[in-house]
Amino acid sequence: MPHPLFTPEIKLMLAEVNSAGLREFCESLHPATVAEALEEDFTPEQLWEVLSQANIRTQASIFEYLPPAMQVEMAEKARPQMGQLLTKMSHDDRVDLLKRLPGRVAESVMRLVDEADRKDIATLFNYGENTVGALMTTDYAWLPATATAAEAIDQLRAQAPDKETIYYVYVVDDAARRVDGSLAPRRLLGVITLRDLILAPRHALVRDLMETDIATLRYDQEQQAVAQLFARYDFIAAPVVDDNFGLLGIVTHDDVLDLVQREATENLQRQAGVGPIEGAYLDANFWTVWWNRGKWLAFLFVLQMFTINVMTHFESDLERVTFLMVFVPLCLSVGGNAGSQAATLVIRALALEEIRARDWLRVFRRELLMAAALAAGLGLLSIVRTYFFTPESVLVKLPPGFFWNLNWAITLAVMGICLCGAVIGAMLPLGIKSLGWDPALMSTPFIATLSDVLGIVIFFNFVALFFL
Amino acid sequence: MPHPLFTPEIKLMLAEVNSAGLREFCESLHPATVAEALEEDFTPEQLWEVLSQANIRTQASIFEYLPPAMQVEMAEKARPQMGQLLTKMSHDDRVDLLKRLPGRVAESVMRLVDEADRKDIATLFNYGENTVGALMTTDYAWLPATATAAEAIDQLRAQAPDKETIYYVYVVDDAARRVDGSLAPRRLLGVITLRDLILAPRHALVRDLMETDIATLRYDQEQQAVAQLFARYDFIAAPVVDDNFGLLGIVTHDDVLDLVQREATENLQRQAGVGPIEGAYLDANFWTVWWNRGKWLAFLFVLQMFTINVMTHFESDLERVTFLMVFVPLCLSVGGNAGSQAATLVIRALALEEIRARDWLRVFRRELLMAAALAAGLGLLSIVRTYFFTPESVLVKLPPGFFWNLNWAITLAVMGICLCGAVIGAMLPLGIKSLGWDPALMSTPFIATLSDVLGIVIFFNFVALFFL
Repeated sequence: MPHPLFTPEIKLMLAEVNSAGLREFCESLHPATVAEALEEDFTPEQLWEVLSQANIRTQASIFEYLPPAMQVEMAEKARPQMGQLLTKMSHDDRVDLLKRLPGRVAESVMRLVDEADRKDIATLFNYGENTVGALMTTDYAWLPATATAAEAIDQLRAQAPDKETIYYVYVVDDAARRVDGSLAPRRLLGVITLRDLILAPRHALVRDLMETDIATLRYDQEQQAVAQLFARYDFIAAPVVDDNFGLLGIVTHDDVLDLVQREATENLQRQAGVGPIEGAYLDANFWTVWWNRGKWLAFLFVLQMFTINVMTHFESDLERVTFLMVFVPLCLSVGGNAGSQAATLVIRALALEEIRARDWLRVFRRELLMAAALAAGLGLLSIVRTYFFTPESVLVKLPPGFFWNLNWAITLAVMGICLCGAVIGAMLPLGIKSLGWDPALMSTPFIATLSDVLGIVIFFNFVALFFL
Repeated sequence: MPHPLFTPEIKLMLAEVNSAGLREFCESLHPATVAEALEEDFTPEQLWEVLSQANIRTQASIFEYLPPAMQVEMAEKARPQMGQLLTKMSHDDRVDLLKRLPGRVAESVMRLVDEADRKDIATLFNYGENTVGALMTTDYAWLPATATAAEAIDQLRAQAPDKETIYYVYVVDDAARRVDGSLAPRRLLGVITLRDLILAPRHALVRDLMETDIATLRYDQEQQAVAQLFARYDFIAAPVVDDNFGLLGIVTHDDVLDLVQREATENLQRQAGVGPIEGAYLDANFWTVWWNRGKWLAFLFVLQMFTINVMTHFESDLERVTFLMVFVPLCLSVGGNAGSQAATLVIRALALEEIRARDWLRVFRRELLMAAALAAGLGLLSIVRTYFFTPESVLVKLPPGFFWNLNWAITLAVMGICLCGAVIGAMLPLGIKSLGWDPALMSTPFIATLSDVLGIVIFFNFVALFFL
């Protein structure tokens, strides 16, 4: 949400070339607030003009809070400034930006960056998408184990302006030289919080103060593991290590919050059969959204065509009891609904690691009992419904003495379809998971479609049982 | 996930009454790890025996990480110990626990707590569920504006052991006396981070160092606002104030992460037509889950019964073109799928505040265009399908020369139903939101049900157009 109040004021200051006013605006407010105010109604050139009044560190902070699309536009417009800004940006944010820039823009910006930064960027650039490495930043605070508490605080003072957080400090050994002569990452020995450093006696050694039982992440783990770790341990940051416990970087709480929000959105979208869509609802590219929705609709449409084949198979029955057709949509919907519920619960439980694929038997037993209990409830409703509310036009077409047959056929079909839908809904995500795929692919429309196909078979079998 | 490795070791130490070993186990590991190891296979009595070996502060930290159900069991078993523990627990966690305890247990535990703590608990107890107040804690670190940086750090050293976080420190004025003689909450003047305090010259005044442009939460705001604030500003904590900017407490990043995870679960469940279920999938009470799923299934079942009425209405058409019935499930499913997608996107965009109810016209226009583009794609698929794959048994029943009529009737029905489903799916959540209700109530099965009822009308109208 842009701050409509600031917009005219900023425009006026720009028109009057009021540098002092713009600097005051940039430096006195929280960078997120400044970014919010600049989010709409300004050209990239105007944005650079506003930013350039502030000191370079503030510029970088504000820039990081701007929407990604706007960052890209700005970078394309002013590569020299961008090169400067890059050196002051968070190490993770600048890599995200460079990934978004067109190749030749990224290259020309990179040429303006000094070698240390260029190396750091190149390292972070190479981690696979959705791995912990792609989420981490390398600007962590660190200490040698031999420092005293007082020395440690002095060292942190020197490091603070450039570090993402100094509240968790990582204790490392000296870098070892690899066989090929390059330096290996320094090994992580422990972690100490700034709180503990402040509470400690001045001469206590970091070595004796640090926590050595450390929860770490590996750079090649999936990002989902991060959310679980932070949820359990309430961390502000967590260290990322390589195979030899060498410290590669840290993941911070704010990135985890963004990750959890983004994953929740993706899961909701997948559950509804939408390919994950980047960007806000009204801003996302029309044709990207079209494709992400259309491909699923088309896939489901083709899958649902099996209902035609199945119904054609029961064609002859269908013609003898056409009046029963009015119950088909009702009966089928029960399977879709029960299946959606089961699939959603199981997929979420898998994501939160409450269950694992190997728990399938426990899940199966529970879901079978649950489905039976749900089916019993719906069966009761169905009996009441068919008994009291069957339309006159259906009743007159029933063969004499067949009223209870109707009642039983519909009720048993409803119960059977409910059972079948719930069990499919619970088991398919587990099956997919045990194949190593993402269980969230089992979207509820997909479950509903499968259950429709099976539902028709169940429906006609009970109809045949009681009428043919 | 329990740590199966620790279990036998702990059991052995309990059997041997190895106090030193148990103390070592409790105090050397992270409290979350200890809690994890104790999560299964131990009675409340055994848990107390393990905990009581550690110092009281560690006991409290471990206890806070235990699952809520286990905390309740333990509190019921040992009220005197619980009273002691309560004084060392986080202020928000202990209130959550007391809310879960049966009334008489809570009372008898509360009687063992001193007056200051009792007052604090009573205050937090009274905030409405789902408000910011219910999420906050009162153990924040604070400073007077007149302190120097060096004095501030000394004061924080004294406060640190009892505070949830000392990384954000709140600067407040002296408490004012209300007309009735009671003390009003101290007014929030600014905030300063421990990082800034450490970087500042020793004699600089907190007043000059603090940030006065503060993003605050109000105690009576909905919790959803918290997630948005933290996502935007990357806070570790945020202050909660009353109408007079009096500081009531803080909300910390770890509680926000839990909140976002919990809300994501609830939204996923609501979207699938499941009442929010507390607790892990396999642990949740069977009949609670049954009720939370069954009530929605029953509601949808009753709603879906309208399809019977609608189909009965088209009874006479139905009998003349029974062979077209095989296309009904296919055509209806399109509306449900398109509607689910639209509803999910709109509900999520509302939750993330990307759109507001008053944007309905923009959403309507976009969704109409999108639905038209999606319908066009599906229409094409449908023509291909009907042209090449119509079952022989349907073809032989077509009146001569009616093949293209079939093609058009099905294709137009598919397109019309897609359009209708998507527009309902997008507009209903907005409508519900503008009434002040939760748009997530528009679950996708609900949208699918409505779209089924309308879909049948659309289907038969196109059939009538081309066949009757």
